[in-house]
Amino acid sequence: MRRASFDDLDCSVAHTLEIIGEWWTPLILRDCFLGVTRFGDFQERLGIARNVLTTRLETLVEHGILKKVPYQDNPPRYDYKLTAKGRDLWLVVAALREWGDKWESPDGPPVSMIHKTCGHTTHIVPTCADCGEELSPFDIALKRGPGAKANTPVVA
Amino acid sequence: MRRASFDDLDCSVAHTLEIIGEWWTPLILRDCFLGVTRFGDFQERLGIARNVLTTRLETLVEHGILKKVPYQDNPPRYDYKLTAKGRDLWLVVAALREWGDKWESPDGPPVSMIHKTCGHTTHIVPTCADCGEELSPFDIALKRGPGAKANTPVVA
Repeated sequence: MRRASFDDLDCSVAHTLEIIGEWWTPLILRDCFLGVTRFGDFQERLGIARNVLTTRLETLVEHGILKKVPYQDNPPRYDYKLTAKGRDLWLVVAALREWGDKWESPDGPPVSMIHKTCGHTTHIVPTCADCGEELSPFDIALKRGPGAKANTPVVA
Repeated sequence: MRRASFDDLDCSVAHTLEIIGEWWTPLILRDCFLGVTRFGDFQERLGIARNVLTTRLETLVEHGILKKVPYQDNPPRYDYKLTAKGRDLWLVVAALREWGDKWESPDGPPVSMIHKTCGHTTHIVPTCADCGEELSPFDIALKRGPGAKANTPVVA
């Protein structure tokens, strides 16, 4: 019922949630970015039911976000590794973390991000790919893009 | 059952999903950033059941992400407007959109983002708040932060 409605929404936010919106999936991706690759490690860290974890991992594999790399033949066992498409979800996961750090962590951030290149504790500043200035919702506009359809959501 | 497990995860990604992870909520926020403020407009644009929309909006108000601003007294009617905490979710919603634009939009992005300051169609480049260089998952490290607890997830 909900999924049917989502199919009708020609919107990249909806398309993305179709794949990664299920509650556990962003946390599985979080662990992928932390270097976790094995079923048992995901299961232990997240305390997630095995059948739920199996379904979520297979969905991520089907959509090309994770790939299965065999590390044992008998019985067959796999590492689940991020593809380029999967690594591209980093900003989504990082933005979720930073918002929680700022607004829902009264004792301070549980985890700090270090920029290895400069060595400092840091956070993300979103900038314009064209001019390099900082981007905010106040100085952007949205217009119908090249893939717009009749049902593409537009500015109110 | 799922919620109980989430409560045990001392992680800002989990804390954020606790509030905005429910499927419809990021799409409601998408519309907030597009300037939608009224119940009927959200309902029409999203095709969402009224009771589900009511619950989601009230949750966002309870968590200080939206505020209700009366625009009519009898019967009472409200605009739902983003607070500073809510506007801070912009990067989450924008990152979801950009990923879908890149990986799940075979006909091209449904919507294009224009940087009004420079006038160009653009996308987000995440940069380091300290040194200004571009950030990627390859050149960051995570360590226990000031609010870390015994159950804070750590690097595998």
